[in-house]
Amino acid sequence: MKLDVLVIAAHPDDAEISVGGTMLRLSRAGKKVGIVDLTRGEMGTRGSVEDRERETRAANKILKLAVRHNLELPDGRVEVTVDARERLAALIREHQPEVVLAHHVDDVHPDHKAAGELGRLAWYLSGLARLAAGGASSAAKPARRPLRLYHFMGHLPFEPTFVVDIGPVWEEKIELVRCYASQLEPAHAADKGQHFVFGADILGRMETKARTWGERIGLRYGEPLLHRGPLPCFDPVLLARS
Amino acid sequence: MKLDVLVIAAHPDDAEISVGGTMLRLSRAGKKVGIVDLTRGEMGTRGSVEDRERETRAANKILKLAVRHNLELPDGRVEVTVDARERLAALIREHQPEVVLAHHVDDVHPDHKAAGELGRLAWYLSGLARLAAGGASSAAKPARRPLRLYHFMGHLPFEPTFVVDIGPVWEEKIELVRCYASQLEPAHAADKGQHFVFGADILGRMETKARTWGERIGLRYGEPLLHRGPLPCFDPVLLARS
Amino acid sequence: MKLDVLVIAAHPDDAEISVGGTMLRLSRAGKKVGIVDLTRGEMGTRGSVEDRERETRAANKILKLAVRHNLELPDGRVEVTVDARERLAALIREHQPEVVLAHHVDDVHPDHKAAGELGRLAWYLSGLARLAAGGASSAAKPARRPLRLYHFMGHLPFEPTFVVDIGPVWEEKIELVRCYASQLEPAHAADKGQHFVFGADILGRMETKARTWGERIGLRYGEPLLHRGPLPCFDPVLLARS
Amino acid sequence: MKLDVLVIAAHPDDAEISVGGTMLRLSRAGKKVGIVDLTRGEMGTRGSVEDRERETRAANKILKLAVRHNLELPDGRVEVTVDARERLAALIREHQPEVVLAHHVDDVHPDHKAAGELGRLAWYLSGLARLAAGGASSAAKPARRPLRLYHFMGHLPFEPTFVVDIGPVWEEKIELVRCYASQLEPAHAADKGQHFVFGADILGRMETKARTWGERIGLRYGEPLLHRGPLPCFDPVLLARS
Amino acid sequence: MKLDVLVIAAHPDDAEISVGGTMLRLSRAGKKVGIVDLTRGEMGTRGSVEDRERETRAANKILKLAVRHNLELPDGRVEVTVDARERLAALIREHQPEVVLAHHVDDVHPDHKAAGELGRLAWYLSGLARLAAGGASSAAKPARRPLRLYHFMGHLPFEPTFVVDIGPVWEEKIELVRCYASQLEPAHAADKGQHFVFGADILGRMETKARTWGERIGLRYGEPLLHRGPLPCFDPVLLARS
Amino acid sequence: MKLDVLVIAAHPDDAEISVGGTMLRLSRAGKKVGIVDLTRGEMGTRGSVEDRERETRAANKILKLAVRHNLELPDGRVEVTVDARERLAALIREHQPEVVLAHHVDDVHPDHKAAGELGRLAWYLSGLARLAAGGASSAAKPARRPLRLYHFMGHLPFEPTFVVDIGPVWEEKIELVRCYASQLEPAHAADKGQHFVFGADILGRMETKARTWGERIGLRYGEPLLHRGPLPCFDPVLLARS
Repeated sequence: MKLDVLVIAAHPDDAEISVGGTMLRLSRAGKKVGIVDLTRGEMGTRGSVEDRERETRAANKILKLAVRHNLELPDGRVEVTVDARERLAALIREHQPEVVLAHHVDDVHPDHKAAGELGRLAWYLSGLARLAAGGASSAAKPARRPLRLYHFMGHLPFEPTFVVDIGPVWEEKIELVRCYASQLEPAHAADKGQHFVFGADILGRMETKARTWGERIGLRYGEPLLHRGPLPCFDPVLLARS
Repeated sequence: MKLDVLVIAAHPDDAEISVGGTMLRLSRAGKKVGIVDLTRGEMGTRGSVEDRERETRAANKILKLAVRHNLELPDGRVEVTVDARERLAALIREHQPEVVLAHHVDDVHPDHKAAGELGRLAWYLSGLARLAAGGASSAAKPARRPLRLYHFMGHLPFEPTFVVDIGPVWEEKIELVRCYASQLEPAHAADKGQHFVFGADILGRMETKARTWGERIGLRYGEPLLHRGPLPCFDPVLLARS
Repeated sequence: MKLDVLVIAAHPDDAEISVGGTMLRLSRAGKKVGIVDLTRGEMGTRGSVEDRERETRAANKILKLAVRHNLELPDGRVEVTVDARERLAALIREHQPEVVLAHHVDDVHPDHKAAGELGRLAWYLSGLARLAAGGASSAAKPARRPLRLYHFMGHLPFEPTFVVDIGPVWEEKIELVRCYASQLEPAHAADKGQHFVFGADILGRMETKARTWGERIGLRYGEPLLHRGPLPCFDPVLLARS
Repeated sequence: MKLDVLVIAAHPDDAEISVGGTMLRLSRAGKKVGIVDLTRGEMGTRGSVEDRERETRAANKILKLAVRHNLELPDGRVEVTVDARERLAALIREHQPEVVLAHHVDDVHPDHKAAGELGRLAWYLSGLARLAAGGASSAAKPARRPLRLYHFMGHLPFEPTFVVDIGPVWEEKIELVRCYASQLEPAHAADKGQHFVFGADILGRMETKARTWGERIGLRYGEPLLHRGPLPCFDPVLLARS
Repeated sequence: MKLDVLVIAAHPDDAEISVGGTMLRLSRAGKKVGIVDLTRGEMGTRGSVEDRERETRAANKILKLAVRHNLELPDGRVEVTVDARERLAALIREHQPEVVLAHHVDDVHPDHKAAGELGRLAWYLSGLARLAAGGASSAAKPARRPLRLYHFMGHLPFEPTFVVDIGPVWEEKIELVRCYASQLEPAHAADKGQHFVFGADILGRMETKARTWGERIGLRYGEPLLHRGPLPCFDPVLLARS
Repeated sequence: MKLDVLVIAAHPDDAEISVGGTMLRLSRAGKKVGIVDLTRGEMGTRGSVEDRERETRAANKILKLAVRHNLELPDGRVEVTVDARERLAALIREHQPEVVLAHHVDDVHPDHKAAGELGRLAWYLSGLARLAAGGASSAAKPARRPLRLYHFMGHLPFEPTFVVDIGPVWEEKIELVRCYASQLEPAHAADKGQHFVFGADILGRMETKARTWGERIGLRYGEPLLHRGPLPCFDPVLLARS
């Protein structure tokens, strides 16, 4: 199935937390959005795999996703292997998205960092013709590299290229992330200690981040995205269409 | 007169060489474009002031500019003064452009650098209400800061935020810059020595730069622009309008 | 009067908004804090000079400042002059603070940027003996450079060296900034347009910033500070006092 | 055994050369310090494994280490594997240090670089509860991430966050590093050629580095440390304890 | 065989496209130049392995190479393994070049990036005596690290340390790269889509790059090289030889 | 008089301390070296103007300078004015050096920073023909921009482009700087406090700096220089002269 946007994320709630608003706006507007989760999140401090699968299904309904894959790489042990990057490249060729969204390659969380590197490598490899032809599947799709790869923000702050206005779907994004109830409740008293990097309050931090980046462009809530190297000009004032 | 885009440049040919293609595309599409030159270019190695004025008028005709001002600051001695920045801010308020284009604040040429700093300061100051009210002119316009300030590339290379496709007007841009014939001809044998920073071949370097940046986004000819800090999202794939 | 900390700021509410929490914690702990405002804020879009003076006096009471000076430089036109930097250096010598806090030298607001440069220059100059001896005042104090100069965050985001925990005084900081009531109310309908860089909601943005930086170190509210170059080691785990 | 500080280093003398002064000050002050060496240094150009073990034992006595582990990874071939990072994370959980010190992730020496990456990954992973629970050892310790991870300086110069004053233990640090006598003597005439990156004079370079960083903060001898991202405020002038 | 310069490149035409002019000038001047290609380029979108071998032999003749090796790593799947880096280090020891040229470690193409990392690691490892002694070959050469490692420019633009003037061999470089005829012809209509990152016009982009960097130093055509860290002074004006 | 190298420095001992070794090597090799001091150093904490003039004359003898100018700008108050930069540009045109050496534009000392900016501006302006023709002097020299401008290291550490080997003249450099005896002796007990930025031990810090940069390129003593943007290739291994 042809997609407009494909999101590559490490754990089943990462896509929602980082670019849930962007995905909501796109699917509300009739665009085709898909997600590839790399792991089942089975090493997450809180919640069972069954919890997370049920939660993911609930999130999918709100997102109205066109497709959601899971590479079933081992949670907490995502590695940048040739096999993983080629499986991802095959999924990109299969769905032919115009844009890919992935973690940042220097994210503080080891799985996020590996997922960012895999996303960047797979994006490039998706455009190599013979790699495509050599795929195991008899139905291998032709090579095609998405137009743009953007990195979203996880645990590493960075100066983004632009910010998506998610004000119109802010309430829905909160509802979306609340689907992952197991991740939002401290499991026990020691929980804070285990997550001290940025604190255990996922919804609170999500709001702070949305406000920070929204305010940078004069709006209430935003999601930041980073492009490596210059983009084509999309500024409506500078676009000249007679 | 309300403008879409205002270009602030140090010498009468800087705007044409750096963003001539962007201006051509905009005016061809019916948008209102203006220029403020800071100096008459009277210290230029080649050509008289009369030459440059005649050349500028020819360029204006090709560009179909809505307006072109000249601050008559001393060429080779542009300084970042309160007076100059407030005169520029008054012009911004007068024309209310949506976008301002200016030199880079670290350009190698002292006048370009000063012009970039003046552009940045004036852009900010144009939004201060009381500064506007206190202007000398009885017809002072209300404060209004343009939506975006972009820096164009002169003698300092930098990694731009985006590149404007000028392929459709490339031949016209050459014709435009050829208006400044006095600047394109070596005045004498020693001329190369006086301009060795990047060589004296203005048209040749202009083509190299246009190809370099065009190729970075997969096109033939481009003009690079830099934004400080994140932009709103203008990527058409990510724009969701239901 | 000997101070522990001296804050150098462009307009009468800048110190409060940027490092009000830090100042509150220090004065609550019995440390001596002073402020030098460079201008009266007379070009501020909202409120009269009288309003701002009354508001400043109210803020001073909450802050329990040891001293507050005003250089009476022209608002909207702060320039980096030899006279201004030497007046500031004389104040530093007079009060002998251990630490100076100043704007960032690349702040987006022209006055903030100039104030940051003046603060950095004056900090250095305060340690030059003959400059001190040559001061106009017959009671010139001996040269003495404060131990450290930190830059606080205004309109330019940056990655700070450390974050001050202002959770214990967060409610008081809100009360403190509310003293500047004239600055918190939109003057008229067009006000948003004049301040679009980061929006007109000063208290809202202040909370976002405090949460952003607090969360970066695992706390609720913080104020970020930047040091140029390495600091001495102050980490309590690494401090070895037998 | 609970530690205050755990140092992760590639070869048996790396910890001593880079942060020997810091460790000496800490152990002199009664703090608990441990080291994990990743290799036996068996590929070192000079000295046998037996030499280095004997030298390491002598160094341990001077350092009064609480514990010293060796992962026995292959010298000259340290790789960033899941197994190595989880063994390191288990050691961090076992000793629960407040602070971890590790190589820089971009160090010029391949083993140093890999050790820096392993240190950073293990530091993060030590805080993941289920990874801890899944450890092979029946006595697996609960997850706990040290408060701070600092990178020390090996063969890559960088601008540190702060500098530890090692003036009080400078003579002892020289004595400490002299324990590794096999490393300090050129093995043969060709030795210089094999180590030309920074020269073969380990003690001489150690003194230069200590003086460089000490002088940056106005002292005689220092050891530089780097933190990624902002720290909490530890500046004694800004700490407010009423 | 002792070499002056050894080039390490991912695919059989990478060395020619990136530093073909530099190699031509060196071999024309009687210096010994060698290449290690990491792969046969068998996954290249265009041309068979046989095509590329024939093309490579033609290029070798023009280059008058002293030696050309191929590690036969899998094209499209180059990985940074201990085996590959030690095979490269052994080749460096075998040929004892004074200078090594390699891809940039952040190049956009996954194979280029891996080749750059392998080059940097092998360069360092070539100077470790016991690693050399432990080589599989009975004829292992003694350790010796080349004086300098430079990175050449592939798909990642960067600010180089210096630029080699290739004006004198520009026509020959074009002839050299034309040897790889299979790579210069679009294989089919969809080809542009598969290579859109920088466009499919290899010769055109090569000329743009040569002009860009040549013009930066006032010449017509150049090849950029990057050094990590400071170099010795080679500026002829500053060299003092009495 | 035609020079090979012109050094532009803020105070009479700055050139000697920062690039004394480079100058000594050049003059020993018969090259023509000149200095422009911007001030008389009359605000220096230690020594009278007469002391410094006598010391400067002694230094000149050791350096065997071709020429030494003094702009007599006010010490402690060097500003970047049009007049100062044009006087400097006139001196550059008068002496036509191949290379100019100047302070870094971000140096911590206000005078050094201003001197670095003046040097950079004057270097550029020296190549503008009409600015040259418009000089006050009837004997104005034709425009000519030196080939390269390098920044030397004062109080701001930076990563240099290359390092000059000053081992052969190290003892002479110490003798040279000892000429400035008034600057090497603490004037009184409080002196340390007034100079705490890097400590008052000028000769000690000079040695540390020389060792630091010498060791970076495998030598004993070095002076670091920075070039903005790429240089031509001067590496002797890569230079091809048949």
